[in-house]
Amino acid sequence: MTAFWGQLLDGTDFASRLADAGSAVEDALDALLATAPLAGEIGRPERLIEAMRYATLGGGKRLRPFLLIESARLFEATGPGILRAAAAVELIHCYSLVHDDLPAMDDDDLRRGRPTTHRAYDEATAVLVGDSLLTLAFDVLADVGTDSDPAVRVALVAALARAAGIGGMAGGQMLDLEAEGRFAADGRPLALNDTQILRLQAMKTGALLTAAVEMGAILGRADRRGRDAVRTFGHMLGQAFQIADDLLDVESDAATLGKAAGKDLGKGKATLVGLWGVDAARSRLATLVAEAEDALAPFGEPAAILRQAARFVAERKN
Amino acid sequence: MTAFWGQLLDGTDFASRLADAGSAVEDALDALLATAPLAGEIGRPERLIEAMRYATLGGGKRLRPFLLIESARLFEATGPGILRAAAAVELIHCYSLVHDDLPAMDDDDLRRGRPTTHRAYDEATAVLVGDSLLTLAFDVLADVGTDSDPAVRVALVAALARAAGIGGMAGGQMLDLEAEGRFAADGRPLALNDTQILRLQAMKTGALLTAAVEMGAILGRADRRGRDAVRTFGHMLGQAFQIADDLLDVESDAATLGKAAGKDLGKGKATLVGLWGVDAARSRLATLVAEAEDALAPFGEPAAILRQAARFVAERKN
Repeated sequence: MTAFWGQLLDGTDFASRLADAGSAVEDALDALLATAPLAGEIGRPERLIEAMRYATLGGGKRLRPFLLIESARLFEATGPGILRAAAAVELIHCYSLVHDDLPAMDDDDLRRGRPTTHRAYDEATAVLVGDSLLTLAFDVLADVGTDSDPAVRVALVAALARAAGIGGMAGGQMLDLEAEGRFAADGRPLALNDTQILRLQAMKTGALLTAAVEMGAILGRADRRGRDAVRTFGHMLGQAFQIADDLLDVESDAATLGKAAGKDLGKGKATLVGLWGVDAARSRLATLVAEAEDALAPFGEPAAILRQAARFVAERKN
Repeated sequence: MTAFWGQLLDGTDFASRLADAGSAVEDALDALLATAPLAGEIGRPERLIEAMRYATLGGGKRLRPFLLIESARLFEATGPGILRAAAAVELIHCYSLVHDDLPAMDDDDLRRGRPTTHRAYDEATAVLVGDSLLTLAFDVLADVGTDSDPAVRVALVAALARAAGIGGMAGGQMLDLEAEGRFAADGRPLALNDTQILRLQAMKTGALLTAAVEMGAILGRADRRGRDAVRTFGHMLGQAFQIADDLLDVESDAATLGKAAGKDLGKGKATLVGLWGVDAARSRLATLVAEAEDALAPFGEPAAILRQAARFVAERKN
């Protein structure tokens, strides 16, 4: 897949920035979950915090925090609040994984090659882990440590809540379960057309990726044009992410991906790859990367890393 | 139980204000869940929204919204944002009921005499309903419609997130499950002392009740002393609420309460009533009501309704 972009990644710089962001966010998450805010000294639910750490630390590409950090950098934001906001986005992502893996949802036993949270602990704990990670994300954003300007903090809360809720991630997961035929009397998947699949995926996956770059712009006091430009970038990146994910599901084996390969197709899950075939999907993926790059053209060289992120998302192997 | 307070409620005014608040909050919730914010026109998860409405509308005393509204009134706040904030608190309360009722948690089939959300729909939908109600609460608070001042909005987010998270409601539910012996190798409940029970209940129940009155104070631009006073009131009210709840569990029958009576004791659940006995618990309840009233003494007559709320909580029959 790598060659057909006609352009190799400038790997060193991009790879090192991605790794640096991942490491910095890991530290930020570690700190938040070690000294997590408690309402006075009324008790400390150790098992819950331990399970939250299990669900959050030590894994993942940290793509959403990376996008937030690079978007903040593009708009010349500075300060420790960037990492806090990046951690908040990752908390939301991790909560969604914990709840999506539950037996009542996608019923997955493995995540990143480790037992899922409800397998490592139990279902009740996993429900509360997700609830608590979700809540903590807003707690972190609202805290003065994230930005001295309350208008910025509340804009971050609004962007993240909008992306995570019924019009975004949670609503997309619901539509995804419906598309699997979960609630149909005959249990058969709905036959979605590509417009419907795109809408579903924009909610389930795209909204949070878009929120990540938008939150970077908010921290950098971007004007409306700047914010719209990175949102467009986020939309294209989100679509590319999902097609790449669906291609990986078709092409990978269980060892590489850490989950049962071909599982989505086995469920009759509606994907663009399933609808269009692999070749057309790859072609669309290339177009999306180009469109994502175009959206950042006005920013010139400073946006080079974000443009590379679009290619990274399309070419990733896991 | 009524007589021993030595004071009858001035029923008309209090009852009508409680009913009015409940009705106004019902309308606010109805509006929020009809026109719930969607990220563009990318799809509308009808089943999810319908289930969110099922879990939220048409029931409950709306005690937390009432407390927020009366606290806001005490600090002379005005405007439609009060009802939005009141609705946000109720969204959090409703989310917690939906998740607590799940089979993996308390496994309840009935709530307010109706099937619980996972029984009326299914577990996957109930998980997403809770997640979405929780997220919507922060979306509502962050929106400019709640208050024109971003500092007020972000303070509301912070107060609610803190009360709902690991240091509050979610952490308290976790400790409650632990106290039931859910995670002990022998499945036997922990023997908690009264200090530990008080801590657990302050997190699980008290934190959100306290947040409700605190959010009213935030909307009314209360100073530190005013905010601390209503927080103290909230703490006392929260303890009174829980003892009254535990007394109801012992005394009520299934028909009155809409759930299996004596269930908590049957589980070996740690309660102060179980530890102290009914008479000592009633005596403590009376003291707590007096302490809650005392906390509001500096406000004089304008706080009469909130003081009555403490008595209402202690004397309620369901």
